Amino acid sequence: MNDTISAMLARRSIRAYKPQQIPDRDLNWILEAGIYAATSRNMQAWYLTAVQNKELLKRLRDAACDTMLKSDNERNREKALDPEFSPFYNAPTLIIISGNESRNARIDCANAAQNMCVAASSLGLGSCYLASFTMAFEDPGVAATLLRDLGIPDGYTPQFGVALGYAAEHPTTPHRRRDVIRVIK
Amino acid sequence: MNDTISAMLARRSIRAYKPQQIPDRDLNWILEAGIYAATSRNMQAWYLTAVQNKELLKRLRDAACDTMLKSDNERNREKALDPEFSPFYNAPTLIIISGNESRNARIDCANAAQNMCVAASSLGLGSCYLASFTMAFEDPGVAATLLRDLGIPDGYTPQFGVALGYAAEHPTTPHRRRDVIRVIK
Repeated sequence: MNDTISAMLARRSIRAYKPQQIPDRDLNWILEAGIYAATSRNMQAWYLTAVQNKELLKRLRDAACDTMLKSDNERNREKALDPEFSPFYNAPTLIIISGNESRNARIDCANAAQNMCVAASSLGLGSCYLASFTMAFEDPGVAATLLRDLGIPDGYTPQFGVALGYAAEHPTTPHRRRDVIRVIK
Repeated sequence: MNDTISAMLARRSIRAYKPQQIPDRDLNWILEAGIYAATSRNMQAWYLTAVQNKELLKRLRDAACDTMLKSDNERNREKALDPEFSPFYNAPTLIIISGNESRNARIDCANAAQNMCVAASSLGLGSCYLASFTMAFEDPGVAATLLRDLGIPDGYTPQFGVALGYAAEHPTTPHRRRDVIRVIK
């Protein structure tokens, strides 16, 4: 096994972070990894917003909680009432991956998110790929202000989030199903 | 830059392959990289079929061409009439990534495809992430027989393909937009 595949196998979804911020150099490499992901017809339909600003992180958390409080799911409502709860696990850096209106934008964004999580793993950082993170943008009024303050360009919609930081937990290797592979020679 | 990020930056979409098959060991690592991708709620909603069988590869090519011949797009119709044309660029290995019916299956499949392309890059192999490859399965009658002969389980639908082999071309670094990154401290 080489270092790249090793970083892929070592990647975990980290749901507890130390407060210490990640180095700028690491963040820059992770963003670079994102924009070198595969992109349909070279559309590069992504926009990456790395948020380290505490006030903005709190507003994103609160917006997600407001949506969760209105949810039909009781567990979601309970979580949102917990002042310690954070949809990005209180990570010191949150990357928002937004997609434009082109047809495969959401897939481009997924590719960028996957690359960034593996890049974080290769740098010894924890990450979590957040697929349901877009709930912070569900209320149209709140979303309009948030998108403006985040500087996300018109025509782009948040698709995924990637939480980044130093891991404060070390989850065990997740079980992987082996019966999902078939080789036909 | 470390080896992992280097493999990400070196990855290109390769559209010409040598006929030589890839080693089994490399294929196994690439498939392993696929099933270690991020997966929503640990659903592992993917099924990976690595096809190296020449008869099946030809049938997949022909099925895609049949769909292209019925297309409104004149360029697609022209391509499909070229006997040299292959929707997977005559790569000796084609991995079909199918997703089940769970909500984020297509995203799980994208994550697996991205990891496999980067893993291939790290092993010195060429790859191409094929987003429009599913056209081979557009005709319901043809699809039913193909899915059965490929052993793709009921409830799974091909979402993407990854072509794999030794590169017979060395495309230059694609230009990446730099204005799609914003850091807010």
